[in-house]
Amino acid sequence: MRKFDLEHVYESQQFDSELLDIIFNVADEMKKDLAAEQRRYSQVLNDKIMASLFYEPSTRTRFSFESAMARLGGSILTTENAKEFSSASKGETLYDSTKVMCGYADLIVMRHNEPGSAKMAAEASSVPVINAGDGSGQHPTQALLDLYTIRDCFPAVDNLSIAMVGDLKYGRTVRSLSYLLTKYDNITIYFVSPSVCKMDDDIKDYLTVNNVEWKDESSLEKVLPLVDCVYMTRIQRERFHDPEDYEQAAGKYIIDVEQAGLMKKESIIMHPLPRVDEISQKVDNDPRAQYFQQARNGLFIRMALLLLLLGNDIDD
Amino acid sequence: MRKFDLEHVYESQQFDSELLDIIFNVADEMKKDLAAEQRRYSQVLNDKIMASLFYEPSTRTRFSFESAMARLGGSILTTENAKEFSSASKGETLYDSTKVMCGYADLIVMRHNEPGSAKMAAEASSVPVINAGDGSGQHPTQALLDLYTIRDCFPAVDNLSIAMVGDLKYGRTVRSLSYLLTKYDNITIYFVSPSVCKMDDDIKDYLTVNNVEWKDESSLEKVLPLVDCVYMTRIQRERFHDPEDYEQAAGKYIIDVEQAGLMKKESIIMHPLPRVDEISQKVDNDPRAQYFQQARNGLFIRMALLLLLLGNDIDD
Amino acid sequence: MRKFDLEHVYESQQFDSELLDIIFNVADEMKKDLAAEQRRYSQVLNDKIMASLFYEPSTRTRFSFESAMARLGGSILTTENAKEFSSASKGETLYDSTKVMCGYADLIVMRHNEPGSAKMAAEASSVPVINAGDGSGQHPTQALLDLYTIRDCFPAVDNLSIAMVGDLKYGRTVRSLSYLLTKYDNITIYFVSPSVCKMDDDIKDYLTVNNVEWKDESSLEKVLPLVDCVYMTRIQRERFHDPEDYEQAAGKYIIDVEQAGLMKKESIIMHPLPRVDEISQKVDNDPRAQYFQQARNGLFIRMALLLLLLGNDIDD
Repeated sequence: MRKFDLEHVYESQQFDSELLDIIFNVADEMKKDLAAEQRRYSQVLNDKIMASLFYEPSTRTRFSFESAMARLGGSILTTENAKEFSSASKGETLYDSTKVMCGYADLIVMRHNEPGSAKMAAEASSVPVINAGDGSGQHPTQALLDLYTIRDCFPAVDNLSIAMVGDLKYGRTVRSLSYLLTKYDNITIYFVSPSVCKMDDDIKDYLTVNNVEWKDESSLEKVLPLVDCVYMTRIQRERFHDPEDYEQAAGKYIIDVEQAGLMKKESIIMHPLPRVDEISQKVDNDPRAQYFQQARNGLFIRMALLLLLLGNDIDD
Repeated sequence: MRKFDLEHVYESQQFDSELLDIIFNVADEMKKDLAAEQRRYSQVLNDKIMASLFYEPSTRTRFSFESAMARLGGSILTTENAKEFSSASKGETLYDSTKVMCGYADLIVMRHNEPGSAKMAAEASSVPVINAGDGSGQHPTQALLDLYTIRDCFPAVDNLSIAMVGDLKYGRTVRSLSYLLTKYDNITIYFVSPSVCKMDDDIKDYLTVNNVEWKDESSLEKVLPLVDCVYMTRIQRERFHDPEDYEQAAGKYIIDVEQAGLMKKESIIMHPLPRVDEISQKVDNDPRAQYFQQARNGLFIRMALLLLLLGNDIDD
Repeated sequence: MRKFDLEHVYESQQFDSELLDIIFNVADEMKKDLAAEQRRYSQVLNDKIMASLFYEPSTRTRFSFESAMARLGGSILTTENAKEFSSASKGETLYDSTKVMCGYADLIVMRHNEPGSAKMAAEASSVPVINAGDGSGQHPTQALLDLYTIRDCFPAVDNLSIAMVGDLKYGRTVRSLSYLLTKYDNITIYFVSPSVCKMDDDIKDYLTVNNVEWKDESSLEKVLPLVDCVYMTRIQRERFHDPEDYEQAAGKYIIDVEQAGLMKKESIIMHPLPRVDEISQKVDNDPRAQYFQQARNGLFIRMALLLLLLGNDIDD
């Protein structure tokens, strides 16, 4: 079988279907190990240090990575103040910051506000760099955990119909997930969004070239009975000039008990979180609601990446 | 003997005298263990993760919990920026934040600005939640460490006279401690405070119903010779409209060498810290000064709670 | 051999040449251990807790200390918000903060904005305190790692010529390093700086008294061929009233490929980092460029200090 041969993880385009399989299989192993009476991997990274270098705070993502590292026995250096590094007044480059950080850690997890920064850091780094979100750029581990959640419910992934709902223009999760879905056969995506935040053409063209069928739809009700998975996202108020437009748009794309009733019995409801009111709390106990499990899956995916990037063999 | 049967710790009213005994006995065991040549408990939680979720910074309380976790071998995820979670702009509920956090940690320590928030989080959480202060609400582990300090000096606790001095209206420590003191017999409390920050009637009524004698006093000098314990608190300048009133009030309730001279030989002086000048630094070397030991006792109490909540049996 | 007998590390003047040798030898041992297949020291501090108490953020220095602690198996409590401790509104003294912190940690690393604060904390503390920079005061571990870097390239240190370039008035690193250089024989220092940020007379007098030869020079080109080591520092724009003066000064003291060409073949280029454009990125691959190694050396020095201060014997 092909080896995991990435040195860094900075964008979704790095993954082909073989790499995805490798990652997901290790994630499955991690999930099993965390539930085991006697854990096999609890100390496997106990001589390794991960640096969480967050140029903007993101407690959720940071905790998910740090929990993954702790579950493998590793140590953590952490900051939500990484901007201090490259402050205008001091003017250090990301290149220099990364060069210094390599001397202190065995792996760097970076959240930065500028697209492309993770790739730049990877080029400077002598240790693996994982992109934990670079502004309007990518958030590849989120895309992996999203796809892992879909695969957990539909192991083949092929032949699925998926609705992506809400802010498809600025929401990087749906963009990154779209890239990954091209690795599977016979996928159909419904893009359901207000007109001000439609999915951009670059993704649509990429899907077309890669044989993924897609359709723009404005009615959520019409799409719900058709899909195996509905992926909700938060619509950001600040995208709208007119508050009334926002109210109308936000109110139009909500999953309440009634909407859930329109969905297939075997379908799933996803959300990258945080949610505002796109999904009613009443839906949380519906067995199709997968968003908290989705967040939890981030742990397995990140444990898998830490293990694979740090070169640990998970076979006996 | 009764088992420790709490799933969470959010308010002082959860404790009865049996639970207090269980906690204090484990705390004694922790104190002994920390002083031992060969520690028995140094790795007992090494497969556990504690998340410090601080919606407002409190280095002292946070370090005390984190030190407790580290002394037991556990891992720590930490943030002083938890507000980012529930920011108005993103609008996530505490319920959702807690649901996500449960997937990453085995126990959550939460400091929040809104009263009742810890209890709300506990209801959402599948792992134990400890309240590390919820605004003007409660700070139950502080009350435990206060009582533990008293018990350390007066093992029976019964029959004591205690002066609570300073800001009794806004200081939650004296309120929480009052609740716990009702578990003991023949306690007398003297409330010594400026008129603008007197102890509220709800506590006084609760004490009366539970057979704790209390008296309002305005003269500290009059009370000092009568009590076994004086519990000083900081008077906050911002409570006073007139700066002169503040100066007068603050200046009236100070323990200097002279005031300490009025106290019984076997009495003790406590303070939840930070102090400003309620207690002169000259008193620090008086053997009756217990406030730094009191802060240190927080470590033993928090180690005990971590062990008990994470279900570890401390008996052989 | 003399024992390491410091309880705290707060200023460069604490070190004599014997202590320097002890520290550097342990640092060498750490460097070797980190590169070893089987590490001997990876768990040696696993029952110890280090508190990083940063009253102002400094991710680089903090991570260097925390990495050192993690590489030795120890636990870490960390804050970049330590100011909350001593906030004007609460008014706690550094003395009290330190007294409390001693109860939670086995060693305190402190970064503070006020000169002398580390020494004050050391006096209050029952556990070792390391100064990680106190305002315009000292940053002794930086001086140690600077000297360690020089010694790594020129083991005897004696007989060296060193140029210190840039902001010599406000840059505490060059001041602290100057103190340490007096421990060696036949050292010559060239001070190369704009007239507004010349090295102060106190250091010059100290050097003279201690038999270190020094010269003021304004031309970098003239000095480069003469020295074994050029220590570049960042010139801070805010020191200059006239922006034009700044441009001229900053532009005058730059190491580009051309300037590097003037230097001896066996010389080295150092910089405490962060750099702005005092050293061109094109010089990074020149084998004489030691600044990233210099940053990395901080790890070995800090591991050595942690071991020595926590009383661990590194001999068999």
